[in-house]
Amino acid sequence: MKAKQREKSADVVVVGGGVMGCASAWELAKRGRSVLVLERSVPGAEASSAAAGILGAQVEAHAPGPLAELARASLGVYPAWVRALERATAIDTGYRECGVLKVAFARAELVKLEREVAWQKPRPKTLAAAALAKREPWLNERLAGGVAVDGDARIDPRLLFRALHIAAARAGVVFRSGAYVRRVVTEAGRAAGVALDDGSIVRAKQVLVAAGSWTSLVEGLGIAPGAVIPARGQIVELETPEPLLRSVVFGRGAYLVPRDDGRLLVGATMEFVGYRREVTAAAVRDLLDAAIGLVPALASASLRESWSSFRPYTADELPLIGKTQIPGLFLASGHHRNGILLAPITARIVLALVTGGRAPVPLGPFAPERARG
Amino acid sequence: MKAKQREKSADVVVVGGGVMGCASAWELAKRGRSVLVLERSVPGAEASSAAAGILGAQVEAHAPGPLAELARASLGVYPAWVRALERATAIDTGYRECGVLKVAFARAELVKLEREVAWQKPRPKTLAAAALAKREPWLNERLAGGVAVDGDARIDPRLLFRALHIAAARAGVVFRSGAYVRRVVTEAGRAAGVALDDGSIVRAKQVLVAAGSWTSLVEGLGIAPGAVIPARGQIVELETPEPLLRSVVFGRGAYLVPRDDGRLLVGATMEFVGYRREVTAAAVRDLLDAAIGLVPALASASLRESWSSFRPYTADELPLIGKTQIPGLFLASGHHRNGILLAPITARIVLALVTGGRAPVPLGPFAPERARG
Repeated sequence: MKAKQREKSADVVVVGGGVMGCASAWELAKRGRSVLVLERSVPGAEASSAAAGILGAQVEAHAPGPLAELARASLGVYPAWVRALERATAIDTGYRECGVLKVAFARAELVKLEREVAWQKPRPKTLAAAALAKREPWLNERLAGGVAVDGDARIDPRLLFRALHIAAARAGVVFRSGAYVRRVVTEAGRAAGVALDDGSIVRAKQVLVAAGSWTSLVEGLGIAPGAVIPARGQIVELETPEPLLRSVVFGRGAYLVPRDDGRLLVGATMEFVGYRREVTAAAVRDLLDAAIGLVPALASASLRESWSSFRPYTADELPLIGKTQIPGLFLASGHHRNGILLAPITARIVLALVTGGRAPVPLGPFAPERARG
Repeated sequence: MKAKQREKSADVVVVGGGVMGCASAWELAKRGRSVLVLERSVPGAEASSAAAGILGAQVEAHAPGPLAELARASLGVYPAWVRALERATAIDTGYRECGVLKVAFARAELVKLEREVAWQKPRPKTLAAAALAKREPWLNERLAGGVAVDGDARIDPRLLFRALHIAAARAGVVFRSGAYVRRVVTEAGRAAGVALDDGSIVRAKQVLVAAGSWTSLVEGLGIAPGAVIPARGQIVELETPEPLLRSVVFGRGAYLVPRDDGRLLVGATMEFVGYRREVTAAAVRDLLDAAIGLVPALASASLRESWSSFRPYTADELPLIGKTQIPGLFLASGHHRNGILLAPITARIVLALVTGGRAPVPLGPFAPERARG
């Protein structure tokens, strides 16, 4: 009964129990806010658990700009954030400062790679074939070389999510699964809670919508219907008795993300097919082919699993983080390929927004305003 | 207690609860024998459920000879056998007289196919590209043609096995799972039962060993240690909203076995790797690549499952069916690629052996004698 009452209102209600919602809820609860997280399915059911876990602040940045800055800021706070999580839960999240390699088969391709990353600071090192083979001996010996982004890292998103969920719950966050939010409820022009599909209302002083690829389906946000759309990614998980790689490797047709226990993720497609949660024959064939091309010994690796999930994509490929036109209603969505990386900085931004503090980065480029419907 | 007592002895004890053991047990029980089936795992756990279910009496016969005759005889009794099973259980086993196509991309390959099947009766029809496309419109339009083996069929081995298991149990067969048979027990030179790994003895007047790839591990059979070895096959199961094929299709690098509900099996590797039950990256890549080559629309098919299992392989690729040197001990094993096809004829042979009747085919070529250890 008590739990039921607690679920009827909160200081902050969070729509979406993914990594954004959880990280934000944890931050708010630590500062004394009562927080209720409403999740359509179960916490961590979607992209948060399906992600590969590349913390690619540099490798995923294709040009200087606000997203590269946001990613760099988030990577900067990652070590302390993960330490706090691991202290709170005793879970090893698989966070490893392993570096990322971008590799090329042809000399010309290597030169192109070098040119693409030349603007970055620190500037990625070029590795000739011999240096590459020394660093990762299982890579295809026909590779011409690669560039090494040593600051980038990896994490196991499923373990990260479990740790976040436990830490948030211990800090007092209440989670409700199977709660389908239809719309944001306003009173006197301010956000006052959310209405569920069973007709019930959950009241809150402030509302954060962090519903990933399902964000546009929540009514009353004041954003366009297609502001956030699902971009399907298919991933294959292989396993070898010993880990063959330490670094994350980006190559032609696939990236490879090793785990210390011998598992290795091969990702990922990028498809706009709505919410069709399929793993397709051609995608699996192509991912396996690319993976075996990069690391020939993977030919005899065991196929463990394959899955697909949905990146929350925005037209300008920047996330939607900030205040909306409705006072008391905030968004943290549209993180596309970089949700796992951007979770800690987003949670800090949300904390600043909700408590009226100063955001750790300029928020202009991420303003939900630009997705106005 | 009564069941326990029934398990301590039987007229016939069958070692192995796969399709051979079950089919034989059913046949014997219908003729009034008390039958106990001992299965290491659970009935149908191994190749019997993992098979693709091609009833390829002609398509799998590469030369005239006793195996081709045995296969033809078994295919001949299949319709009545399946009808009896379906009557006994109301299970549709997916038996379909769909025919099998062997297809070729190049004209020269087609000529080779024609030559390979020219000895067969009835002689398979040659289909030019247009006739092939008319029969199976989803096949790659670049195919040069194929040969059609109209008498061959398909079945769903999992459904077949369920039906067999239920029919056998209803006929009085007792099944015991988790019973690991170490050796055959003899008394006065005759088979008298089997010894389990817990030291207990199950007594029987006659013993049938139908342990598939694990046959050589049963002691006291008088066969060589490597008489039957596992030949791994990997299979991938795809799914499309509508079935794309009706016929079974054999092509370069894969065969395709459709189910009426839109599932489609892509098989299979042939590997000698012991009992390593793996699905490997290269095999899945190659099977998917071959499947998409044969039916391009499979590129967007969903990957449902993948598995591997073990065909019981013999050096001369003929099964071991018949009496052993030990009176009262019989073998029905080593059926390699054709266990599902050969189950009904093998069960009839076993019935004849056990009851002293006349075997439906000459048994000389299949005599366990030749695998003597």
